[in-house]
Amino acid sequence: MIIKGFSASAVPAGIKYPGRLDLGLICSTAPAVTAGVFTKSLVKAAPVVLDMERLKQGRAQAILVNSGCANACTGEQGMEAARATSRLAALALGIPEDMVQVASTGVIGAPLNVAAFEAAMDSLVGGLAPENFEKVAQAIMTTDTVMKTAYRTIVIGGREINFMGMAKGAGMIMPNMATMLAFILTDAQIGFPELNACLKAGVARTFNRITIDGDTSTNDMVLVMANGAAGNKWIDDEAPADQQLFRATLEDVMRELALKIVADGEGATKCITIRVCGAREAEEAEQMARTVANSNLVKTAFFGEDANWGRIIAAMGRCGVRFHPEQVDIAFGDVQIVRNGISLGSDAEEAATGVLKQKDITVTIDLKDGNAAEEIYTCDFSIDYVKINADYRT
Amino acid sequence: MIIKGFSASAVPAGIKYPGRLDLGLICSTAPAVTAGVFTKSLVKAAPVVLDMERLKQGRAQAILVNSGCANACTGEQGMEAARATSRLAALALGIPEDMVQVASTGVIGAPLNVAAFEAAMDSLVGGLAPENFEKVAQAIMTTDTVMKTAYRTIVIGGREINFMGMAKGAGMIMPNMATMLAFILTDAQIGFPELNACLKAGVARTFNRITIDGDTSTNDMVLVMANGAAGNKWIDDEAPADQQLFRATLEDVMRELALKIVADGEGATKCITIRVCGAREAEEAEQMARTVANSNLVKTAFFGEDANWGRIIAAMGRCGVRFHPEQVDIAFGDVQIVRNGISLGSDAEEAATGVLKQKDITVTIDLKDGNAAEEIYTCDFSIDYVKINADYRT
Repeated sequence: MIIKGFSASAVPAGIKYPGRLDLGLICSTAPAVTAGVFTKSLVKAAPVVLDMERLKQGRAQAILVNSGCANACTGEQGMEAARATSRLAALALGIPEDMVQVASTGVIGAPLNVAAFEAAMDSLVGGLAPENFEKVAQAIMTTDTVMKTAYRTIVIGGREINFMGMAKGAGMIMPNMATMLAFILTDAQIGFPELNACLKAGVARTFNRITIDGDTSTNDMVLVMANGAAGNKWIDDEAPADQQLFRATLEDVMRELALKIVADGEGATKCITIRVCGAREAEEAEQMARTVANSNLVKTAFFGEDANWGRIIAAMGRCGVRFHPEQVDIAFGDVQIVRNGISLGSDAEEAATGVLKQKDITVTIDLKDGNAAEEIYTCDFSIDYVKINADYRT
Repeated sequence: MIIKGFSASAVPAGIKYPGRLDLGLICSTAPAVTAGVFTKSLVKAAPVVLDMERLKQGRAQAILVNSGCANACTGEQGMEAARATSRLAALALGIPEDMVQVASTGVIGAPLNVAAFEAAMDSLVGGLAPENFEKVAQAIMTTDTVMKTAYRTIVIGGREINFMGMAKGAGMIMPNMATMLAFILTDAQIGFPELNACLKAGVARTFNRITIDGDTSTNDMVLVMANGAAGNKWIDDEAPADQQLFRATLEDVMRELALKIVADGEGATKCITIRVCGAREAEEAEQMARTVANSNLVKTAFFGEDANWGRIIAAMGRCGVRFHPEQVDIAFGDVQIVRNGISLGSDAEEAATGVLKQKDITVTIDLKDGNAAEEIYTCDFSIDYVKINADYRT
């Protein structure tokens, strides 16, 4: 799919390993309205610090992204390296340096090899083409096993508006915000305040609802660029239906990417939705669902296809939300296994074990205390998670 | 070692598996001053609810403990089962029912088999002997691979005072409070307020400083019984040195048990101390150490013997404590690997990798923000943790 006015390129720059796509570039023919959401970690990588500063202007024209090195915990030298690489791209593209956003993913603490960027920049820029988005999506993969992209098209005022999203995830996925890189491009014409509001609301309902291992990274970011090349009439409060369609579509792209990240969680064999309903407050439902979704004991039981609801209720008990254990219902898929806090017996457990053999599983916890409900998306916890993370750097 | 006035017994009662020690009894010849600390989970197992109620009197004479069934999430029927088993023990021992404390560990949600207790009670009580503490320590093991006991002897006013502690741990170990069963017996003569204060202070500095997987159980408890059989003069405020010696010794017993639990964490291959110093407040140091100690990415890196300090600083960044990343020092053992937030280079990393080959490892994080320091004890996170917890019920 073409996103009007955008082109992309990726090359193997040998940043960590030779011969693998590890440097990507996305470019708009004109400055694009750009909004971002960044890691809430106190320890922010150099590219995060630089981008946050530059995005105060609400505009960008290019994203330069590398895998193989996070450029995090690298001090003033790391900041200088981030600026230097953005300068190389800006010079090659003939645009102002501060219109380049930079993103990095990889090992923390190692210095960024600016020379590798310099050596690769000509072929990187020379390769820019409207059909190359998926090459960038490949270049940002680390322990991801599949490339993650999402596409949508909508029509506003007779003009076709396209969306393209890409993400990397796999490990270090956690709320506030979901730890990964994601870039979303659209040729829609929209102002910064609207785009920024759509991004923030969508992230809260998608990327911030997934969790793989409770760990958060120093480098997380979601960037959305809207370059207006579709030539649609402005999306704003004067056309609430258009605004709503844009917002829903952007959220939809983010949800597809978020769920693809969960499905490709490090070592994951199952996708699990933890749904808490009957809560007094949405915040409480979310807090409980998140605690259950982050419990290693719950996640290993899913890997073992064991309908061990005791571990779920134990995680609920420590999540900090007040509820009445003696009125809780729990179901695996359509199979109710706990009623009023007590097991429904071995037949129900056997049926629930059948549900656990599926790849997509929803656990529903009904507190029967109110009307609020929230969902968190996660994956199971397998032997391969440990293998991947014990061997990552070797 | 004999703890004057105490005897113990354990038998295979077939509560879950035939032929394995799974029912234990500890008994004092006279009512003992008894204090307890119980799980902070909102979901409390029946024996926890019963014991908390009974311990309001600050006295108990016996502990009846089983493995194989947690008697948690079992409703009113579970409460009745807990009472019924305590009644069986009380009748056989000829003591009031409310002088019996009960404890259970095992799978959540399954009903307690009272008939198995009834059938085994005569041989259980018949087996009571002063040398049988370790049989009870064996009977409470679940996924523990080694029995955990600790012994101490002190002299107060010319009288020998003995301590015996036993614990089970392995999985579901986490702060507030450390999730396990522990029973400590002493023949000291001490009042309830003093004993209770010593217990609470000691738990905060020992069992609540260990973490294996961030999960907490429904059944956790630490009970300490002091039956006064040593005949020492009362340990109270009038003899501060005696009081201090008693307190330190009790804490020492608890620390030995706590560290044995960490060393036997499910799948653990290494014992790790996370020490945060240079913090502004002790609470902040503890919070940071706990977040690092609970990070799956940190723990799998230890299993992989990878000096991946980037994962440590990433966990610090999300722990909620404000600090200055650019002034942080990190050392593995005696090897400093990070100075002022930046890697000391590949030689330091290589030396740190050497430290990681040891079985006991201390990571020191210096924030250089103040004078507070705290430690948390944990273990690494191995493939076997997942195997154990995926297969636990099968």
